[in-house]
Amino acid sequence: MRTLDWVGDRVVAIDQTLLPGDVRLVELSTVDAIIDAIKRLVIRGAPAIGVAGGLGVAIAALEADRRGAGRGDVEAAAARIRAARPTAVNLAWAVDRVLATLPMGTAALVAAAVSLLDEDIATNRDLAHRGADYITSLVDGPVAIQTHCNAGGLACVEWGTALGIVRALHERAKVREVFADETRPLLQGARLTAFELAEMGIAYRVVVDGAGASVIARRLVDVVIVGADRVAANGDVANKIGTYPLALAAARAGIPFIVAAPESTVDLATPSGAEIDIELRDAAEVLSWRGIDVAPAGAEALNLAFDVTPADLVTALVTEQRVVRISAGERPDGAIAASSAVSAAVAGARDRTFRDGRSR
Amino acid sequence: MRTLDWVGDRVVAIDQTLLPGDVRLVELSTVDAIIDAIKRLVIRGAPAIGVAGGLGVAIAALEADRRGAGRGDVEAAAARIRAARPTAVNLAWAVDRVLATLPMGTAALVAAAVSLLDEDIATNRDLAHRGADYITSLVDGPVAIQTHCNAGGLACVEWGTALGIVRALHERAKVREVFADETRPLLQGARLTAFELAEMGIAYRVVVDGAGASVIARRLVDVVIVGADRVAANGDVANKIGTYPLALAAARAGIPFIVAAPESTVDLATPSGAEIDIELRDAAEVLSWRGIDVAPAGAEALNLAFDVTPADLVTALVTEQRVVRISAGERPDGAIAASSAVSAAVAGARDRTFRDGRSR
Repeated sequence: MRTLDWVGDRVVAIDQTLLPGDVRLVELSTVDAIIDAIKRLVIRGAPAIGVAGGLGVAIAALEADRRGAGRGDVEAAAARIRAARPTAVNLAWAVDRVLATLPMGTAALVAAAVSLLDEDIATNRDLAHRGADYITSLVDGPVAIQTHCNAGGLACVEWGTALGIVRALHERAKVREVFADETRPLLQGARLTAFELAEMGIAYRVVVDGAGASVIARRLVDVVIVGADRVAANGDVANKIGTYPLALAAARAGIPFIVAAPESTVDLATPSGAEIDIELRDAAEVLSWRGIDVAPAGAEALNLAFDVTPADLVTALVTEQRVVRISAGERPDGAIAASSAVSAAVAGARDRTFRDGRSR
Repeated sequence: MRTLDWVGDRVVAIDQTLLPGDVRLVELSTVDAIIDAIKRLVIRGAPAIGVAGGLGVAIAALEADRRGAGRGDVEAAAARIRAARPTAVNLAWAVDRVLATLPMGTAALVAAAVSLLDEDIATNRDLAHRGADYITSLVDGPVAIQTHCNAGGLACVEWGTALGIVRALHERAKVREVFADETRPLLQGARLTAFELAEMGIAYRVVVDGAGASVIARRLVDVVIVGADRVAANGDVANKIGTYPLALAAARAGIPFIVAAPESTVDLATPSGAEIDIELRDAAEVLSWRGIDVAPAGAEALNLAFDVTPADLVTALVTEQRVVRISAGERPDGAIAASSAVSAAVAGARDRTFRDGRSR
C-alpha cells in the first residue's frame, strides 16, 4: 500500500497523525489541503513531502484550468507549496521539477507529477539494495541497527530509505534487531517505525531518545542508519531533531553512522549545515500531548524540528546512485576535502580489502 | 516547603507523580509504603530517596518495637528498602548509616534518620554556593545553562543540587536562561524542573531530549549542569538516561559539563561506570502515557533508566566539599589518573590564572 497516491484528480494519503491506532485515508483535492497536510505532518518524511508537493502543483494546474486562470496562478500556488516546510529540500526539488513542465501544458505537467510516485519507489529500492550491500560489507552476520524518527515506507511513497535498507537486509535474513528511538515530540519512531517494523515481522525495541546513545555505547547495535531532510554539499546532514547525538555516540563507539537519502535530498546549492534553514515548530507540540499539558501552565519550549550532523561524523551517505564515504573525506558534491584526500584513499583501500575478504 | 519531612512517626512527602498539575501530600507510615513510594517515583532524586530510605529504617524500628520484634526484623526491612532501586547509591548509603545506630536503641536511630533531613539541606546549600562560585569562575556574565531531568529541590529535601547551583546563581543575578530537557519517559524535566524554575522566576525553555545536543552545538548555553545517581571512584557518572549525549555534545562544543552531587553520591566502592547497576524499568513507561498507547499493540521497549557518562567527558564534579576536575585527570577517590597528572597540573594552573584574572 502506498503512503500517498494519485487517484483521478487528487491525492489520497494515509493520515500519519492517526497511526498506529487508526489507519485512515484522506483525500486532498486542493492546493490548500495539500499545504495543510504537509504542515500538519499528515504527510511527512522528506521524499513523501517532495512527491506530495509535486502532486500539489498538478492540482494547482488543474484548478487553474477550471478557473481559466493563467500560469501566474500555478506559479504562485507552487511558491506557497514550496514554503510549507523549509528544511527538507525534496519539497522545493519536486515542486520545481513539476513546475518546469508548465509550458508543456497541464496534461504533461500532471504526468510529470505522477511520475514522481513510481520514481520514488524505484529510487528507494535501488538505494535500499545498495545500502544493504554496503552494510553487509561493513558488518558480519545479522545486523543490529539503531534508527531515529521514521525513514520508512511512510516517509516515502513505499519501501523507505533508512528503513528501506533494513527491509532489504531483512529480505536477506540479515537483521538481528532494530532499536527505534521514539522521536519526540511527535513520536514518529514509536508510532510509525514500530508500526512498519511490526508489519515486516522484524524484531524491534522502542527506546526514549535519550537512550539511543546508550544503546550505541553498550554495543547493542552494530550500525546507526537514519534518513535525511537535506544533505549539504560538504556532507553535513539535516535530519530529525535527535539525530546528531546518535552520530556523536556512534563516532565515540566506533560504529558506522549511515545516512540513507535519495539524490533529491542532496542539495549542492547549500554549502554546509550552517546554511540549512532549520524549522521551528509550535511549542505546543512539546508542551502538551493529545491535549494534556506535560509542563506547567505558562511554560515555554524551543521546538527545533531538525538538527545538523557535521560531515566528519557521517561514515557514509547512501543514495540510489552511490555510497559517499563522507567521514573519510569524500563530499556529496564530488570534491574531495583537501585535508582528507589521503585518509579517503586509505579508507578506500581498507574497504576494498574488507570486501575481498583478504589483505593485499 | 520540604519535598519530604518527618512528622510524628511518619514521612510526609509531595507526590511527584502528580506534579505539576496537582500538588498533593502523601503520608507514608509503613515500610511497604516507603518502598512503594520510592519504586513508583512518588519520591525520586538520589538525595531524596536516600533520606526517604533512612527514614524508612526509622519506621521499621518503630514497627518492630510495636510488634515486639527484634533487630533481625529491622535489618530485613532495611535490606528491602535498600533494594527498592539499584542505581542511586544514596539509598544504600542512608539506609546503612541509620542502620548502624540500631544498637543504640530506637530513639537514637530515629534521631539519626531525622538528622538526614537537615543535613541534606545544609549539604545542598554548601554544594550550590561552591558550584556557583566555580561556574562564575568559568563563565563571564549571566550564564545560560542546559540541564537534564530534575536535580532540584524536588530531588532532595529542599534547595537542590544541579538546580541548587542555578538557584544560587540566580540569587546573584547570574542566570540568563535555563534549557530543561523534558526527560522522557517520565518527564521530570518538563514537569518538575520547569515547575521549580517557574517558582523561582527563572527564564527557561523546555526542549525534547533529542534537542539538548543541538542547544549545546548552537551555543545557546554556556554550561551543562546535571545531578548524579552514582559517581564511581574513577569519575564515571551514572545519571538519568539522556545525560551521556549532553556530555558528548558539550565536549564537542568545548563547553563545561558539570556534575553536582553530594559526597554521599560518590561511591568509592564502585571502581568505574562498568560496575554500576543500571535500573531497567517497566516498558510501559515508554510505550504508553497516561494510559494511552504511543506505540503499536505488542511493541516492546528497552527502558534503561540511567546512563553512564565516562569520566573524560566530565569537566568537574561539584560536591558540598570540593570541586574535582575530572576530565583534567583528578579522580573522586583522590588518586590522580596516571596519564593525566600533567594535564591536571596544567588545568590547575589555568584555573588559577583564570580566577586571578591575569596571566602569571
